[in-house]
Amino acid sequence: MYIDQASAQELQAQLAELENQYAGFKAAKLNLDLTRGKPSAAQLDLSDGLDGILSGAYKAEDGTDCRNYGGLDGIAEAKALFSQVLGVKPSEMLIGGNASLTLMFQMVAFAHLFGVRGADSAWSKEGKVKFLCPVPGYDRHFGICEELGIEMIPVAMDDNGPVMDEVEEKVKSDPTIKGIWCVPRFSNPTGIVYSDEVVDRIARLGKIAGANFRVMWDNAYAVHALSPDAPQLANLMELAREHGTEDSVVIFGSTSKVTFAGSGLAFMGTSAANLEFFKRHLGMCTIGPDKVNQLRHVKFFGDFDGLLSHMEKHAELLKPRFDAVLQHLQEGFADSDLGTWTVPHGGYFVSFDARPGLAKDIIRLASEVGVKLTPAGATFPYGNDPDDKNIRLAPSFPSLADINKTMEVFVVCVKLSSIRQKIGQ
Amino acid sequence: MYIDQASAQELQAQLAELENQYAGFKAAKLNLDLTRGKPSAAQLDLSDGLDGILSGAYKAEDGTDCRNYGGLDGIAEAKALFSQVLGVKPSEMLIGGNASLTLMFQMVAFAHLFGVRGADSAWSKEGKVKFLCPVPGYDRHFGICEELGIEMIPVAMDDNGPVMDEVEEKVKSDPTIKGIWCVPRFSNPTGIVYSDEVVDRIARLGKIAGANFRVMWDNAYAVHALSPDAPQLANLMELAREHGTEDSVVIFGSTSKVTFAGSGLAFMGTSAANLEFFKRHLGMCTIGPDKVNQLRHVKFFGDFDGLLSHMEKHAELLKPRFDAVLQHLQEGFADSDLGTWTVPHGGYFVSFDARPGLAKDIIRLASEVGVKLTPAGATFPYGNDPDDKNIRLAPSFPSLADINKTMEVFVVCVKLSSIRQKIGQ
Repeated sequence: MYIDQASAQELQAQLAELENQYAGFKAAKLNLDLTRGKPSAAQLDLSDGLDGILSGAYKAEDGTDCRNYGGLDGIAEAKALFSQVLGVKPSEMLIGGNASLTLMFQMVAFAHLFGVRGADSAWSKEGKVKFLCPVPGYDRHFGICEELGIEMIPVAMDDNGPVMDEVEEKVKSDPTIKGIWCVPRFSNPTGIVYSDEVVDRIARLGKIAGANFRVMWDNAYAVHALSPDAPQLANLMELAREHGTEDSVVIFGSTSKVTFAGSGLAFMGTSAANLEFFKRHLGMCTIGPDKVNQLRHVKFFGDFDGLLSHMEKHAELLKPRFDAVLQHLQEGFADSDLGTWTVPHGGYFVSFDARPGLAKDIIRLASEVGVKLTPAGATFPYGNDPDDKNIRLAPSFPSLADINKTMEVFVVCVKLSSIRQKIGQ
Repeated sequence: MYIDQASAQELQAQLAELENQYAGFKAAKLNLDLTRGKPSAAQLDLSDGLDGILSGAYKAEDGTDCRNYGGLDGIAEAKALFSQVLGVKPSEMLIGGNASLTLMFQMVAFAHLFGVRGADSAWSKEGKVKFLCPVPGYDRHFGICEELGIEMIPVAMDDNGPVMDEVEEKVKSDPTIKGIWCVPRFSNPTGIVYSDEVVDRIARLGKIAGANFRVMWDNAYAVHALSPDAPQLANLMELAREHGTEDSVVIFGSTSKVTFAGSGLAFMGTSAANLEFFKRHLGMCTIGPDKVNQLRHVKFFGDFDGLLSHMEKHAELLKPRFDAVLQHLQEGFADSDLGTWTVPHGGYFVSFDARPGLAKDIIRLASEVGVKLTPAGATFPYGNDPDDKNIRLAPSFPSLADINKTMEVFVVCVKLSSIRQKIGQ
């Protein structure tokens, strides 16, 4: 249905039918939730073998007693394994606790307050500090900037990643821009994979930006493909090495959506200089990470192939859920002017763009019949989607039956909101 | 031996004998270490049951799936158990990751940068910020202040805790003093337990200090007695409640020296207002702590009695080590003017005060024969012991045989250094 081409009569007929359907949802007293990108119980079950896997063998390969204090940057075998997830050398790795968000917060906070190259390089010394935020993006990245008083400048995304002409122009013209947030593979929420050209141009940013500029490369979904033919991501660190810009990139990852969301491992890959800086300040906050849990993870996977096989089991559970979402969108909105959406090959989200000005209304409509969707604006800095159109759908956690019901409601809410807007009601 | 009363001849004879003994140590090519307050392997063995204890049962009492995201302040049963360690209500608890140092750093950093009662109350807005540091104290507390540019003011300790006349006078006269570091039971390094009167006067500080003042109460050794008759600590939170100063106290603890030093739980007990403030900012850095490890700990101890029984096993391993240190000190320095020391009833350290000006020399002498001692000055802000006399001895980690050898060397080094100083050599 193209509502821009429909007659008033057609619209009224549609509206009546949709309001009828909507009333039916209300009567059903639903309680559904499509908000959070968290693994389902079945996904978590895949890693139940973690607890107890050590059978009392708490020593690392080099003889370190993982139970005791120490080892600020994690155990060697965890560095060796997870460096393959991030595409860096084991010597460029730091293995932390259970949250990559913590590593990202610390990286930004340390650079802001203490300076990546000594106290004089602290971003805070330059007064105003800004970050580029490709949109739509991840609300918790934006939260870090807001917490530290760093101004966020949205930049557009297309199917290849951030629009690099815009990024380069801004970085060149404004030296107070100190960083950019990127989720390069299966981007949150659009699911796109940055093209090779975009990755190469990001690796070159260090040449046009100042020495204290940092690319915050959150490769959260590095190994989270839904199928084997999903697009690959170019290796940022190798490209940075070629361009001599290693210090400008900091790469993050975790097993939060590989093993246990709350009890996994977070890690970081970056240049020797950045690592040295980071560890100097990290050492003021902790004596070291949970090495026992690191050892568990290494033993659980065995090697990188073991980790990739494990990810295939996640894909088996996730793919039908994504397919269900996409099928409802296809059936509801193909050949229509009601919205556009992404077809991701991995990650945790489907991003839907409604007609401008409707995201808040659609989410309110859904909420009023017991269907929780991610708040409108969450994917934009300061919660402000200037077009009020982007809605993030997160199908990993609910059951397939719940996803089907939720999407049925979603489609009706989008149509209802669109037609009401069109006829000015 | 009282060297102040010895004749030149007696001193020379002693010196010759000591130099002979010292040469013997050098020839023995020792490699001993008494620096770090970390548990021995036998202590860690006591908790080997942790890994695997869940047998696949990952649900908390309230049905929370501990494997998944969420629960910023930890699981209810961990709050209930560890609130008894800190002497606060379960509702006043937050259970974190593996490091209480992280919670302390965050508390100070959040208060400094963001303000305990809104942005206007940020310490950093007042320009100069100061902390009181009872000395000797814990170097990592001092590290947090130094990292954040908070000026440290040493205050004297006696057998009852910080000298409170001095503390109160300073807090009253200088509103830029925003906090005080305390290790109230088995203080690091002196091992003393704050008297009931001192605890009560600390609970009252909130009445004479400004509203943004915080007592950083690091009760790291709350349940770490060497014998059942060790002195008890008064309950700071109850006293603060009586005085209406709950917001002025923040209490920390951990299982780092209860289960695994690197893989335990850290926790914090404080007022509802402080918790709300802390969680608001913590939520910018993490989605939540490792709840699976929290569940492991609760299951491992069962209840508070189970935890206390577990601590008795630690005492059995630690007491002979402390006794060995004390016996060497007694045999070497009783009836002498060569030094004084504490006789702790718990904790991890024995604190020795040499004759003024000798700590660095003694530590150098020991180091030159292969015996590592905690660096001189480590127990003072900025690493500066104004009298250069305090040496922290940490007997938990080495074997009894190594402690005996180390202390043999230590006694000779103290005597050697003292006599050389006396005769001006």
